[in-house]
Amino acid sequence: MKIVIPFKARNPKSRLSNLLNEEERVNFAKSMLLDVIDAMPDMEILIVTPESIDIDFDKVTAKNLRVLIDERSLDDAVNSLIDEEKEIAIIMSDLPLLNREVVDRFFNEEADVVVAPGRKGGTNMLLVRNSKFRVSYHYGSFFKHVKMAKELGLSCKIFDSFYSSIDVDEESDLLELLLHGEGKKSWKFLIDRGFRVEFKKDPVFYKE
Amino acid sequence: MKIVIPFKARNPKSRLSNLLNEEERVNFAKSMLLDVIDAMPDMEILIVTPESIDIDFDKVTAKNLRVLIDERSLDDAVNSLIDEEKEIAIIMSDLPLLNREVVDRFFNEEADVVVAPGRKGGTNMLLVRNSKFRVSYHYGSFFKHVKMAKELGLSCKIFDSFYSSIDVDEESDLLELLLHGEGKKSWKFLIDRGFRVEFKKDPVFYKE
Repeated sequence: MKIVIPFKARNPKSRLSNLLNEEERVNFAKSMLLDVIDAMPDMEILIVTPESIDIDFDKVTAKNLRVLIDERSLDDAVNSLIDEEKEIAIIMSDLPLLNREVVDRFFNEEADVVVAPGRKGGTNMLLVRNSKFRVSYHYGSFFKHVKMAKELGLSCKIFDSFYSSIDVDEESDLLELLLHGEGKKSWKFLIDRGFRVEFKKDPVFYKE
Repeated sequence: MKIVIPFKARNPKSRLSNLLNEEERVNFAKSMLLDVIDAMPDMEILIVTPESIDIDFDKVTAKNLRVLIDERSLDDAVNSLIDEEKEIAIIMSDLPLLNREVVDRFFNEEADVVVAPGRKGGTNMLLVRNSKFRVSYHYGSFFKHVKMAKELGLSCKIFDSFYSSIDVDEESDLLELLLHGEGKKSWKFLIDRGFRVEFKKDPVFYKE
């Protein structure tokens, strides 16, 4: 099993621009990547990125870690890796609420294709055990991936998880990280910058 | 095991007022309640509501169904039921993406208290096997329920599910129902009123 984590360090998380400047968003994205790596089991991990990245991987416990620079599109980069592997997991880098229990449950699913949905029809985690499978990460990828598995005659399991469904893209997602992420590197990043949760009728966050 | 589903028919889902008038919101809330009932196993189901409701329960397959009118607050009504039962599940009525597989997994958890989080710190499903437990459904109820279990020395399990995390309260939740709810009564309610999903970079829904 190989674990692939795509990562883009240039102008990431632009929908958070009202709250964090570009340098902060880069560091926030890196802290989420480290949280994702922290949640992974002791397997081969490949960070796939379009350009070289400057991250101190000593901060994470995972040892079997490599960075692969691939300038092609996300789909092309991932599909060429699927060609080479009998069993490959593609995990998004903005899932800071992942933990080992969730990830173990995911890896223990036995279908040819396992798809973990995010909000808005996205695919947050994907496990592929057939090299004919192709990814297509835009415009409702969750449904495209389920459909593709069926068309290829592959067994497909939908992985049902709240924690893996939270990809941090917009302000409402920050609230979930602040609520559920205590102790995570990305949670600490936000707390250090003054983010706090206040429970009104619904909770809101603010920046001190 | 008794299943309790709190339901309020008066001016429900007010955050959807821009899209649905009050009569539509009442019918939409009822259709979600029926979807929740459809997902339940063959156990005793109690609909708890502050005033009498007009619902055609023949539309659902569940047979062992009663309506209890309790004018007190949600917390008081539920807590008095917890007093009487060794094993009780409280399931919110606005979780149309529940299905039998998710619910079975939930009921099979073995802790004294099982809590399924919703977005914004809410508690969407709760399983209580100790009559000392008290619910408190506002201002971050998920964290209050986890804390209360610990303070009472009860074992507590967090139930990790995307489908049970989607309580339909606001417009962004409608999108999730439209995306994942095909065939549900509440999904059909929206489709019949012209709601459609369009995949742009992110999917949006519109009303024809």
